[in-house]
Amino acid sequence: MKEISHTSPSKIVLLVIDGVGGLPHAETGKTELESARKPNLNHIAKRSLCGLIDPVSPGITPGSAPGHLAIFGYDPVKYNIGRGVLEALGIDLELKPDDIAARGNFCTIDDRGIIIDRRAGRLSTDKNTELCRLLNDIAINGAEISVVAVKEHRFVLILRGEGLSPELADSDPQRTGLAPRKIEALSPQAQRTAEIANEFVSQASSRLKDEAPANMVLMRGFSRRPNMPSIPEIYKLKPAAIAAYPMYRGLASLVGMRVLPAGESIIEQMNNLHRYYADHDFFFIHFKSTDARGEDGNFQAKVQAIEELDNALPDLLSLDPEVLVITGDHSTPATLAMHSWHPVPFVLKSKWCRPDNVVEFSERACLAGGMGRFPATEIMPLAMANALKLDKFGA
Amino acid sequence: MKEISHTSPSKIVLLVIDGVGGLPHAETGKTELESARKPNLNHIAKRSLCGLIDPVSPGITPGSAPGHLAIFGYDPVKYNIGRGVLEALGIDLELKPDDIAARGNFCTIDDRGIIIDRRAGRLSTDKNTELCRLLNDIAINGAEISVVAVKEHRFVLILRGEGLSPELADSDPQRTGLAPRKIEALSPQAQRTAEIANEFVSQASSRLKDEAPANMVLMRGFSRRPNMPSIPEIYKLKPAAIAAYPMYRGLASLVGMRVLPAGESIIEQMNNLHRYYADHDFFFIHFKSTDARGEDGNFQAKVQAIEELDNALPDLLSLDPEVLVITGDHSTPATLAMHSWHPVPFVLKSKWCRPDNVVEFSERACLAGGMGRFPATEIMPLAMANALKLDKFGA
Repeated sequence: MKEISHTSPSKIVLLVIDGVGGLPHAETGKTELESARKPNLNHIAKRSLCGLIDPVSPGITPGSAPGHLAIFGYDPVKYNIGRGVLEALGIDLELKPDDIAARGNFCTIDDRGIIIDRRAGRLSTDKNTELCRLLNDIAINGAEISVVAVKEHRFVLILRGEGLSPELADSDPQRTGLAPRKIEALSPQAQRTAEIANEFVSQASSRLKDEAPANMVLMRGFSRRPNMPSIPEIYKLKPAAIAAYPMYRGLASLVGMRVLPAGESIIEQMNNLHRYYADHDFFFIHFKSTDARGEDGNFQAKVQAIEELDNALPDLLSLDPEVLVITGDHSTPATLAMHSWHPVPFVLKSKWCRPDNVVEFSERACLAGGMGRFPATEIMPLAMANALKLDKFGA
Repeated sequence: MKEISHTSPSKIVLLVIDGVGGLPHAETGKTELESARKPNLNHIAKRSLCGLIDPVSPGITPGSAPGHLAIFGYDPVKYNIGRGVLEALGIDLELKPDDIAARGNFCTIDDRGIIIDRRAGRLSTDKNTELCRLLNDIAINGAEISVVAVKEHRFVLILRGEGLSPELADSDPQRTGLAPRKIEALSPQAQRTAEIANEFVSQASSRLKDEAPANMVLMRGFSRRPNMPSIPEIYKLKPAAIAAYPMYRGLASLVGMRVLPAGESIIEQMNNLHRYYADHDFFFIHFKSTDARGEDGNFQAKVQAIEELDNALPDLLSLDPEVLVITGDHSTPATLAMHSWHPVPFVLKSKWCRPDNVVEFSERACLAGGMGRFPATEIMPLAMANALKLDKFGA
């Protein structure tokens, strides 16, 4: 792609409706998309190229990171982002390329050192912040230590220093009734980092010993930012993200997008798209509430979220971008109340797409689309081609 | 494939309608194929297995070489054919496996050595031929030099000798206002070849210095025939090509096909198919004018080219080959007036194909075909299977 991509004035807008795919309601037999009043999505589908994407591959339920990375054109298995890094992105922490991030839990151990609550009674975020301040003072030779509160019992540990390695096993045994594990190096070059991490846990344990229920920490997902080529490098684009949630902003920034102000609602997101439209040639817009309502198991609320999104579309269409892609990072059927493996409706509108016979934006309708079922990693080449930003391959 | 292919008397005919896929006309909403009267293509589609091929992958616009190699069963990214080799194939030059071929332009430089016209005013082919004779006398230690005129400002340089390497950068900076570049070796083992190539350019420059506007040469696409297994080796076929244009004959010969006389028209091509039908078990027939009219941007002329091809089909069907495959190497929508990334209609007729519900040979109709969208590299195994030339895989 690097060799055949070129810059041009045409604009690509990628709208990700998080968790948009669904399953039929037991009573109506219709999915959330099939139940929603969505004249704008249908209007777009009618004039466009439709299909269904597999974010990772059939049967695989993607987390938000692989779902988005695939849509951004990255092999989601090759570029698997560690739990620690994801947690840091989720609170807008900026990671340097060599920083090691780990996800931490405050937990409760009994007097024999056995874990009796992995979440320390889900302590308050205020208490969490206070305890993180305590741990932030820990000093260890060879690494700068930084402990940042997330929410309830969750925090992020950042280790910064020369020659550190993320190849460490978890201390969190993921169940009660066991003692926290010693952090093991998974390769010889991680030996020193393992010592530093264990020293951190040991000092944390001393400082927390009188803080029951949060008298210990559990560490997992030691990881580093993946070393991946950026979207500007690969596609010669000047990309920007309009996403309200930190984790999506973090993912966007990982792949080289400029993070623009988003606001709280899809209306504000559209306002910001208009405001910055001249400055970029690629926009990633992230709409969250479809996924949130799906995870709540609230079918009707997810239908309403789709309708809210649909209402905002005329404002987007008024910009008439050369290429508009609308899809989701995975399905979140309200009946399952969680992310799922089902393929996700996709539509691409451009002057140069070959329209198919689809007249509705929904799971069943998109099946008959011109793309059929296809891997999400093919979206970027397709969008680039339709924006006439790709040279011919081979003579 | 090598292990499960066997020879048998059954015949496979592969008809490539160059650039056949299209896009809807703004007024009618119909593509070139949908607009054409094509009773024979429709008749075949009705009784056959249909689908749409991706020559390289979604979004990628193939040049003619990758488009054809994919149809012939080769990974078009792995076997990327260099510009120099393709240019040589295009004038029926026979390349030995170790020959280095490069594409040359006669160009105009000013008295400071800056390129002011990359094509030397598109000089006449006669003048080109005269200048190539001048350059053909150049003698350099370590390589036999051969310079052959192509057309207007274009020529082919062949370097033949022991231990030469094609890993050379271009001297052509691909724009005016710069001096031609020194040819750099891209690997240590190409050092001597780089010296030879630069010596060629230097001697060419001396001989051309009074020949304005064609007073310099620009070289690009140094390459060698790819080292690829042939169709007879892989499929145990005895293949032949009936193609009127040299580049396609060259590609066919690269993969081990015998190049048969073609004639100028599809009628003559069919005559030659009849004449040589007993001698081979695989025939590649190349029909060019659909692509040419598409590149002209002439929608109606492309429709007529499709109708001309359709008229010739009864003559092909009268031979009743065990397997008939009809497809294209890429789309060339007249509305775009260039090769494009859109998938290409495909039909396979055989006694043993499983027919689907498609009753028309067109982009939208083939979408509903039994193969759906699929990579062009799967055509050869399918054709072999339908010709009952493949053994069972595994016990």
